[in-house]
Amino acid sequence: MADEERFRRLQEAMDRERLDALVCRLPEHVLMLTGYWPLCAWAYAVFSREGECVCILPDTEEAESRAELFKTECLTYTFGTKDSPAQAESIFRLLKSVARGWKRVGWEAGCTTSAPAWNTAELQIPSESSRRLLEQVFGARRLVDASEFLRAEQVVKTASEIERVRTANRISNLGIEEFFQRVVPGASGVELAAAVESAVMVHGTGCSGARRVRAFAQVAIGEESAYGWRPMQMTTARRLQRSEIALLELAVVADGFWCDRTRARVAGEPTAEQVEVHALVQKAQAAALSVVCTGVLGAAVDEAARNVIRDGGRDQGFMHITGHGLGYRYHEYAPMIAPRSRDVLRRGMIHSLEPGVYDPTFGGIRIEDDILVTESGFEVLEPISSELAG
Amino acid sequence: MADEERFRRLQEAMDRERLDALVCRLPEHVLMLTGYWPLCAWAYAVFSREGECVCILPDTEEAESRAELFKTECLTYTFGTKDSPAQAESIFRLLKSVARGWKRVGWEAGCTTSAPAWNTAELQIPSESSRRLLEQVFGARRLVDASEFLRAEQVVKTASEIERVRTANRISNLGIEEFFQRVVPGASGVELAAAVESAVMVHGTGCSGARRVRAFAQVAIGEESAYGWRPMQMTTARRLQRSEIALLELAVVADGFWCDRTRARVAGEPTAEQVEVHALVQKAQAAALSVVCTGVLGAAVDEAARNVIRDGGRDQGFMHITGHGLGYRYHEYAPMIAPRSRDVLRRGMIHSLEPGVYDPTFGGIRIEDDILVTESGFEVLEPISSELAG
Repeated sequence: MADEERFRRLQEAMDRERLDALVCRLPEHVLMLTGYWPLCAWAYAVFSREGECVCILPDTEEAESRAELFKTECLTYTFGTKDSPAQAESIFRLLKSVARGWKRVGWEAGCTTSAPAWNTAELQIPSESSRRLLEQVFGARRLVDASEFLRAEQVVKTASEIERVRTANRISNLGIEEFFQRVVPGASGVELAAAVESAVMVHGTGCSGARRVRAFAQVAIGEESAYGWRPMQMTTARRLQRSEIALLELAVVADGFWCDRTRARVAGEPTAEQVEVHALVQKAQAAALSVVCTGVLGAAVDEAARNVIRDGGRDQGFMHITGHGLGYRYHEYAPMIAPRSRDVLRRGMIHSLEPGVYDPTFGGIRIEDDILVTESGFEVLEPISSELAG
Repeated sequence: MADEERFRRLQEAMDRERLDALVCRLPEHVLMLTGYWPLCAWAYAVFSREGECVCILPDTEEAESRAELFKTECLTYTFGTKDSPAQAESIFRLLKSVARGWKRVGWEAGCTTSAPAWNTAELQIPSESSRRLLEQVFGARRLVDASEFLRAEQVVKTASEIERVRTANRISNLGIEEFFQRVVPGASGVELAAAVESAVMVHGTGCSGARRVRAFAQVAIGEESAYGWRPMQMTTARRLQRSEIALLELAVVADGFWCDRTRARVAGEPTAEQVEVHALVQKAQAAALSVVCTGVLGAAVDEAARNVIRDGGRDQGFMHITGHGLGYRYHEYAPMIAPRSRDVLRRGMIHSLEPGVYDPTFGGIRIEDDILVTESGFEVLEPISSELAG
């Protein structure tokens, strides 16, 4: 079933930008254009302004793609067997058969970040050999860098895409519930992360129709959580002691759509300072939420959260931004919910709200949920408890 | 501690290719040049023919990198906080401070495949904006595509790199043992995959000094295993029935070094056909192994395995290649152990040996281990049982 809203919007935007066609191979773009999240990123999507859409992919992915592709023509090439012809040659031939003498063909020249395909252990990436291949097919002077175009088109989600990000959030709650149950004195970071990832894969697969589900959990323990503001943590074998914090940072992907959640939980009784900071962070998130609405600036939402934490005397401990877009990726660049962000919230955007306070005296506390911007306000996607202790 | 063997070899190769410096940002290349496997792929490595090596990375990764970096100068930039200056500007400034008027600077222009950083949920990739950045620093006419150079240098591993691939293999055995224990009637694909990944993360972290460990398991169940020859499977909630095969495809990464293993296991009693095919696959792997030696062609090793399976009348079911290089990635392009492969095995190469036979009548059976080529033969890295039933 096609996402007609997406198709129509893409065609309108291509009209505006005078793009005759898009040729993409990054998994998130293939997903947006065709509905199919590639197994191992050897797929190409060709989308014309007239609304023709073709997916070129290895025959080894044909069965999976059939369950996911929009009303998209599917062309396959032989792949991964001992007698497979040269892959670049096969792709060249199929692209050539699809090309229509377009004058301006957008591709992913400037893309610097990407979500992985289902095979997250290995990436196929656009490169100068991709450029040469596309030059041979379409002509060098007809290729246009569409990376900004694609990025801009992803920011506002369609109704169907919103449902799919909602599903990822629903599934992430299975991981958060598992985390809450397992945060006890003696549990280690790697044990908690593995338990969360396992719960998401085992119980999330099939949930709301999700076919391919995977979680990426980071769990910082005790003093490690004071550094939990960093974009990426190591999860270690350090074990929780009584009244220490476990900080869970959790990405879940369900059929190519991502969510981004965080919870902090204390093993046993929290200290007075933890209780105070936790209440402040909850209040900051609620304050930010209350201003989310179509037409509001990202900076205003950030400021609402930051004000609360400043009033609580903890602004030195809140050194990161309040949120970012997401859905096609774990992190998208817009809307930024950050100081000085001029991004204007619009209906259909999805962004995180994740205020946090970090201090070696007690650890780190962050609460993160994914928010859908609506016409008149917001919707928290699949809310779940953010309590500090059970 | 630097990998002197790697440094010396790189310098010799750069002399031969008249490369004055290498500038890399793909995680596997940063790892090879500096010893550090980036947390989230925002690191650059600059390596000069004179042997100077600098790692430019976000300050948020400084602590982790300190435990891993060779004797490498480390320059950091502020990252990921609300007040971070523009990242590209910071990287530009630091690269500029390191540049030495080199005439030929190799970069990753043509790289089409990459292993992920520790954050496997999101990738940073070289793009045309990377090219523009490097052009500003080094001058457009001085940039050289070093993708083939880097690929070639990775093929033969140093003693230190071999130890690290060995560690990944040792850790993968924890996952294989867990798999063997859990393959019983009623177990589902997602349960088995999650249990294997969990065992690897929980028990593998810290094993032989490994700091960051993650597994990527695919488990095909019953009839699904007949399609287990494909480069990528979905793992589903399908449950094992008695005498059905569970086929485990397992990648493990330990501090940036990869292994690639496969085991087939029957729930309960195997059928006569399964036993026959399993013995054939074991025999094919042993036959391939017996010819592995410095100087031998990849095609000869493939043929040794294929002969056995042909003699057993099962060659129609063995449609993939017999092996591939690995270590810096889950799959490297050389040496190819495949029909017509002219790759010559050399001491220090590591490759998989993974014959398999697939047929809807019984499922799919593949046995895969990672092999180190030695002067006079081979070494199976961390061998473990490949029995079909317990």
